[in-house]
Amino acid sequence: MDNSYLNINDIQKIVSKNLNYVNDIIIDNIGNEIPLINDVSKHILASGGKRIRPIITLLTSSICNYSGKNHLFLAACVEFIHTATLLHDDVIDESKLRRSTATANEIFGNKTSILVGDFLFSRAFELMVANGSKRILKILSKASSTIAQGEVLQLTTINDCNTTKELYMKIIKNKTASLFSAAAEISAVLSNKEHHIQKSLKMYGEKLGTAFQLVDDALDYAGTGALDKNIGDDFREGKMTLPVIISIEESTPEEKNFWKRTIENLDQSSDDLNKAIRLIDKYNGIHATLNIAKEYSLEAIKSLEIFPQSESKLALESLASIAINRKK
Amino acid sequence: MDNSYLNINDIQKIVSKNLNYVNDIIIDNIGNEIPLINDVSKHILASGGKRIRPIITLLTSSICNYSGKNHLFLAACVEFIHTATLLHDDVIDESKLRRSTATANEIFGNKTSILVGDFLFSRAFELMVANGSKRILKILSKASSTIAQGEVLQLTTINDCNTTKELYMKIIKNKTASLFSAAAEISAVLSNKEHHIQKSLKMYGEKLGTAFQLVDDALDYAGTGALDKNIGDDFREGKMTLPVIISIEESTPEEKNFWKRTIENLDQSSDDLNKAIRLIDKYNGIHATLNIAKEYSLEAIKSLEIFPQSESKLALESLASIAINRKK
Repeated sequence: MDNSYLNINDIQKIVSKNLNYVNDIIIDNIGNEIPLINDVSKHILASGGKRIRPIITLLTSSICNYSGKNHLFLAACVEFIHTATLLHDDVIDESKLRRSTATANEIFGNKTSILVGDFLFSRAFELMVANGSKRILKILSKASSTIAQGEVLQLTTINDCNTTKELYMKIIKNKTASLFSAAAEISAVLSNKEHHIQKSLKMYGEKLGTAFQLVDDALDYAGTGALDKNIGDDFREGKMTLPVIISIEESTPEEKNFWKRTIENLDQSSDDLNKAIRLIDKYNGIHATLNIAKEYSLEAIKSLEIFPQSESKLALESLASIAINRKK
Repeated sequence: MDNSYLNINDIQKIVSKNLNYVNDIIIDNIGNEIPLINDVSKHILASGGKRIRPIITLLTSSICNYSGKNHLFLAACVEFIHTATLLHDDVIDESKLRRSTATANEIFGNKTSILVGDFLFSRAFELMVANGSKRILKILSKASSTIAQGEVLQLTTINDCNTTKELYMKIIKNKTASLFSAAAEISAVLSNKEHHIQKSLKMYGEKLGTAFQLVDDALDYAGTGALDKNIGDDFREGKMTLPVIISIEESTPEEKNFWKRTIENLDQSSDDLNKAIRLIDKYNGIHATLNIAKEYSLEAIKSLEIFPQSESKLALESLASIAINRKK
């Protein structure tokens, strides 16, 4: 990747005016007479996050020369869907930390996280019904059910050392890439662009989302240990991600027994994470995962070829670069 | 109530042809390549339940002389929303039994129930997007977010002996009556009926749903102990329902201490449920709750006055009678 790419702060600046509108819409729509809903929603929605998905909707709307206001509401809607899944994910994964702070389930309890997740999810649908065409509703509701299917599929592979690369790729395509993809595709639909443009943006989002998830999964064994990342979370849960799958494929029988004990039986002692990291290194698991992520990132950039150069296009290309070059 | 009302079997017979279509749509839409989704969905959706909500959509469509097919899909969609909330409710309430059989969370675990609930909820939206107008989508997505708000509100009143009647009525209106109400209202909208007819059916559903929930809450302290009902569930969870609220209002200081210990502190011994039932009896808590339910049932029937007599209208009136006369 060359050096002309923008960093996330630059990108946020490019869309700052519209992103502020989106944030206002988010705040307006979690404003609720029930204090607990306010508290939980604000904890997870108003406390930051990079807003990657709504930024994708804003930037893709921009390269489609969209001139209306609906993209602002749909960008908020995409963030609502994402946030609802985060609330439920953290309950499922029993996570304690997200973005340097305690998770909602840690502070408010699992029951509250489940129900406020349901609320945000429904609110997302209310928002899209008010601001989207039937075709857009179809794309977003399909993305939602695809996410849920990916999450269930992931649940069925937990603790299963026989999980294949193909199944892993299908899981991340469903659980992560589908919303990135919808966030980009809806802009082309909103702007009444031709089918091949809709398809290109859909592809951009799908490739970008896949790259993001691959790097996320690599960082769980290779991160900097920065405060907002729980290194080794996936290992402790026995989640089958690509670095582990690659390593298991090449393992000696003795090493296979290590994975069986730690991942399948979740029988882990204090040094096992380090041993897992060494085994992943031995078979180049991180490097190979990042290489695949790089391919997806390049394909994401390639999907934008049909658009003329512009600041927004550069920002979208830069997101694909950021996806694979981040350290946390 | 007079004796000319139909029982639930008669009602199911009246709509049997269409209800079979609805069941086929339900089965078609949970048919999924992921076996775990199939298993859980079938466990809760295909294993029965009285299908009250889809029956409401079918019967109200009939009295509106609706001649299309969309009501079949929307009836399935209403049942999907209901089922998604059941899956999440059982996780929240830590329930072990529903309809005489083990709950999905008991068999498949909490994580699976949460995620398959999310899937069914998304699938409901996909179904309504494919088969409903914008106005219908608005009604159903609003109902969904209202349900979630009611559930959160209920969570905030658990273990709180100071919960008022007004707050309780608001909770059940949100968490239960809103979907009954939407199930009826959409039929009038689908049939392009005038505003006052839409309003009447909306009101019918709201009153009927409220009556159902009031009786449910009474039966939790006064049921027959039939296999498919866990008598005392609400008590064990410290849920503040109307029979308890009425009893606490009239309690002596000593009795108040009993409620404080058992409901607020959840410090319960084996005879406490019987003592709770005696205290509720002493202040007529069940009788008073059922009387309010009866008022709602009569109001539901009154909402149908504008419709000419027909078999479907009689069935809808009969549902209002069944709501308050059932023993489980």
